[in-house]
Amino acid sequence: MSNTHHFLHTDLYQINMAKAYYDEGVHRRRAVFDLYFRSMPFDNGYAIFVGLERVLQYLQEWQLTDEDVAYLKSLNYDDDFLNVLKSLRFSGDVYSMLEGEACFNNEPLIRVEGPLIEVQLVETALLNFVNYQTLIATKASRIKQVTTDNQQLMEFGTRRAHEMDAAQWGARASVIAGFNGTSNVEAAKRFDLVPVGTHAHSFVQAYNDEYEAFKAYARSHKECVFLVDTFHTLKSGVPTAIKVANELKDSINFNGIRLDSGDIAYLSKESRKLLDEAGYTDTKIIVSNDLDEYTIQDLMHQGAKVDSWGIGTKLITGYDDPALGAVYKLTAIENEEGQLEDRIKLSNNAIKVSTPGRKDVYRIINNVTGKSEGDYITLADEEPEEEQMIHLFHPVHTFKQKFIHDFTARPLLQLVMESGQRRYAKESIEAIQERVNHSLEELWDEYKRPSNPEEYPVDLSEACWENKNQIIKNVGKYVKQVVNKK
Amino acid sequence: MSNTHHFLHTDLYQINMAKAYYDEGVHRRRAVFDLYFRSMPFDNGYAIFVGLERVLQYLQEWQLTDEDVAYLKSLNYDDDFLNVLKSLRFSGDVYSMLEGEACFNNEPLIRVEGPLIEVQLVETALLNFVNYQTLIATKASRIKQVTTDNQQLMEFGTRRAHEMDAAQWGARASVIAGFNGTSNVEAAKRFDLVPVGTHAHSFVQAYNDEYEAFKAYARSHKECVFLVDTFHTLKSGVPTAIKVANELKDSINFNGIRLDSGDIAYLSKESRKLLDEAGYTDTKIIVSNDLDEYTIQDLMHQGAKVDSWGIGTKLITGYDDPALGAVYKLTAIENEEGQLEDRIKLSNNAIKVSTPGRKDVYRIINNVTGKSEGDYITLADEEPEEEQMIHLFHPVHTFKQKFIHDFTARPLLQLVMESGQRRYAKESIEAIQERVNHSLEELWDEYKRPSNPEEYPVDLSEACWENKNQIIKNVGKYVKQVVNKK
Repeated sequence: MSNTHHFLHTDLYQINMAKAYYDEGVHRRRAVFDLYFRSMPFDNGYAIFVGLERVLQYLQEWQLTDEDVAYLKSLNYDDDFLNVLKSLRFSGDVYSMLEGEACFNNEPLIRVEGPLIEVQLVETALLNFVNYQTLIATKASRIKQVTTDNQQLMEFGTRRAHEMDAAQWGARASVIAGFNGTSNVEAAKRFDLVPVGTHAHSFVQAYNDEYEAFKAYARSHKECVFLVDTFHTLKSGVPTAIKVANELKDSINFNGIRLDSGDIAYLSKESRKLLDEAGYTDTKIIVSNDLDEYTIQDLMHQGAKVDSWGIGTKLITGYDDPALGAVYKLTAIENEEGQLEDRIKLSNNAIKVSTPGRKDVYRIINNVTGKSEGDYITLADEEPEEEQMIHLFHPVHTFKQKFIHDFTARPLLQLVMESGQRRYAKESIEAIQERVNHSLEELWDEYKRPSNPEEYPVDLSEACWENKNQIIKNVGKYVKQVVNKK
Repeated sequence: MSNTHHFLHTDLYQINMAKAYYDEGVHRRRAVFDLYFRSMPFDNGYAIFVGLERVLQYLQEWQLTDEDVAYLKSLNYDDDFLNVLKSLRFSGDVYSMLEGEACFNNEPLIRVEGPLIEVQLVETALLNFVNYQTLIATKASRIKQVTTDNQQLMEFGTRRAHEMDAAQWGARASVIAGFNGTSNVEAAKRFDLVPVGTHAHSFVQAYNDEYEAFKAYARSHKECVFLVDTFHTLKSGVPTAIKVANELKDSINFNGIRLDSGDIAYLSKESRKLLDEAGYTDTKIIVSNDLDEYTIQDLMHQGAKVDSWGIGTKLITGYDDPALGAVYKLTAIENEEGQLEDRIKLSNNAIKVSTPGRKDVYRIINNVTGKSEGDYITLADEEPEEEQMIHLFHPVHTFKQKFIHDFTARPLLQLVMESGQRRYAKESIEAIQERVNHSLEELWDEYKRPSNPEEYPVDLSEACWENKNQIIKNVGKYVKQVVNKK
C-alpha cells in the first residue's frame, strides 16, 4: 500500500455507527473517550506507555481517499454520508501520557475529545497501535530489569514478529525501554536506532569451513564478531575464531563471538576460558537462542559469562502474554443543551465497568522520598496540586487507604493535539529513554520485581468515585424501569 | 512510510554478509535456500501455508531507494558496494507451495534459488511474512474444525493485533482458512473479503437508553444486529431489541443480537428462548468475548445457542503459541567449478540439523482411498511419479516404515517466480479457500483433531536420507581435522 491515509483501518461497526449518528444529526456532538487497559501485561508491576508518536502521525494523516470512497459506495453507503466522511479531518483534542511514562491498569493513557463521529472512527487504530507498542515496551523493560548495566541488549526478533509493522514499531518500543540496538535496518533508519549484527550460519556454510569464512568476513569488516556454533562450538568454532584473530592481529578488532545454540551456561563459561587463555579478555560473548527474562535470570544464576543478549521471538511477540487488552470507552457526551453528560458501560464482570466523566491522572510524588505514592484519577475540574492533603483509597477495597501531606501531584495527561493540530513536537529516542529512566526511578523496587510485584495504587478521587457510584445507581433505576414497562 | 520498496526490512547481518560476499567476488554464485519450520504450531496436526502473495509482491518491488543508500552510507558502507546493492533487483527462482496448502514441519515450504547476495538479503522479510500468516491461518483452521457448517466465523481482532500489517494480513489468513468475514474494512477492501459489524457499546452509551439507541440504528440500517449487553442482557438488552423489532416490523430485518460478556452458555440459551417466544426464530445469536477453539468446544458441549462466532484476540495473536519458528537454511551453493555443492547446518539439538541438497516435496496420495499417506522429500533430480513403489520411512525412527504401491505423487513446490518474473497469477480468495478444503479432504481425520492429533509422516527419500548422513559424517571429519591442526 502506498498511501498513508488509513481511514479504513477500522472496524466496520465504527462506520455503521457513524452513519447512524449522521442520519440522526448527532455526529458533531462533543464526546470524550478514555483509552486504558484493565490488567497488567505479564503480571508486571508497571507498564511502559508507547504508541503516541504513531497515533499522532495517524491522526494527522487521517482522511478518506477517493479509492476508499468508491469502496464504501460498493457497500451501499449513500453519497450524502460519503461526502461527510470524505470531508473529515481529525479536529479533536488529544490528552495523553508521553511515551516512556510508566503506566498502570485502569487509568486513562489517552483521553480523546471531539466530534462524536471523529473520535468514534479512530478507536480501532488507536487501540491497535497502543496495545502492541506498550506491550512490547513493557516486555523489553522486564528483560532490562534482570540484566546488569554493563550488559548490552539487542532486539533480534524481525523474523518472528507479526508482520512488518510489528517488527519495526516493536524494535522502536524495545529501544525506548532500554535495549541498545536492533537488527532491523529499516527500523533503525526510520526511528534513529542503532542497527546491530554481523553474520549468520549460512555465511559459514557457504564456505563450508569456519577458518575460510571468518577470514573472508575479516577481510571486509574491521569490527568482527564471529558466530561459532555452526559445526562444533568448543572444538572448532571458538578455536578457529581465536586462530583467525591471532593471525590478523591489529588489522581487525576481535569484538566478540556469538553463541546461538546449545547450553549457554556451559558454553559461555568454557568459551570465556578459551578467550581469556588466548589473551582476548576484552572480547565479548554474545548469546541468542529463545531467551527471555526467566532464562536470562537462570543463566546468570548459573554464572554464565555473557556480555550481550540478543532477544528475538519472546520479546517481539510478547510471547507469554501476547495481547495487551486496552479498550476505548465513552465517558461523556454532549447533550441537546450542549452540556457534557457522563456515561458508563456496566458489566457483570466488575473489572469491565468503566469510570464515567472527563478525567485527569496525577502521579502523587512524596516530597520527602521522591518516590510515588500512587496514581490519582480525578474529574477534570479538580486541582489536586492545590490541595493540602490527598486521600488515596482503593476503589474496590476502600479500607486500603492512606493520607498524603507533603506531595507533588504530577499531571500525566498532556494536551498533545488541540483541534487536530499537533501541540507536542516529535521527541528523540534518547529523550523518551530518559523519561523511562526517570519514571522508573520514581517507583519503589517492590513494583519493579519481574515476579510477584506489589500492586501499585491507582485510586479515584472521592469526587470521581462518588460520581461513578451515583451513575451505577442510575443505571440500576433504568433497568428497573425497562423491566416495569414490559 | 509511503514507499513500497522494503529492501532495508532485513537484519543488518544480511548486509554485512552481502558486503563480504561482494568483496570476495562470490556474491553472484548460485545458492539454494529452504524455508521451513521445525515444530507444529499449536501442536496441531497440520498447518495452512499462507504468505506467498505477500512474498511475491515484496520480491517484485525489492530495490534500494536513494534514501536507503544515503542511510547505508551513513553507516560507512563504501560506494562500490552501495552501487552494487542499488542495482539489485530480485532475479532468482522461487519454488513454493501455493497458498492454502496443508503443510507440515521439516519440509520445504519455499525453495529460493539465485545469486547468493540476493537470496541471502531477502531471508528476513520472507520469514517475517510467512511465519505470521501461516501461524494465523493455522489457528483459524483449528477454530473452523470445532464449529459446524451452519455457524459463521468472523475475525474481530484488529484492536489486539500486533500493529497494522498483522491486523490486515491476519484477516486475510483467517478468511483463507475458513472464516466468513472480517471487521477490518481496509483488509476487506485490499483483499476482497467480506466486511462485517454493526455497533458497539458506545453507541448505546451515547443514547444512554437501549430503546433510543436501537431505534436510531434501525432508522439508518435496514439490516439490524443489536448489541444487548451494555446494561443488562436479559432484563433490558434482549427485551428492548424485541420491542424495537416488534414496532418496526418489516421496515428492518432483525438479523441478530450480539452477546459480548457474561456467561455465553446461559445467556445464549435464555436469549434464544426470548427470541423464539417472540416469534424471531430466524434471528441469529452472535457471540464474542475472548473466544478460542477450546472455549467454543466447551460452550457447544454445554448446548450454547450460537449461530455466529466473533473471534478477536486469541486468533489474531495466535495467543497460545504466538510465533511460528520458520527458518531459512542454505542447502546448496555453487563452487568454483560452477557445480552446486550441498551444505548442512549441524547442531547438538537434532531437530536443528538441516537437510542438505536441492529438494522437492510430494504428497503421496493413495489411489484407492484418495487420502494422503504422507509427504515425501526427494532430491530435485528424483522422479517419484515414475516409480512403481514408494518406501516411506521415518527419518529418525527408521523402523517406522511402509511401502506404497498404487499412488499419485503430487508435487507441492511450484515454480512461482522464474528469474525474478512472476510465473503464477494472483489467486482469488475463493480459489485459495478451495485449495484449503481440497488439501484438508486429503488428510485422514486423525491429523485434524485439535487435541493430540497423530503425527503426519514427513519422510525423506532414501537418496535424500543417505546424502544427509554422508554430509553429517563429512562434518565430523572436518571437526576432527580442526582439532588435530591445533
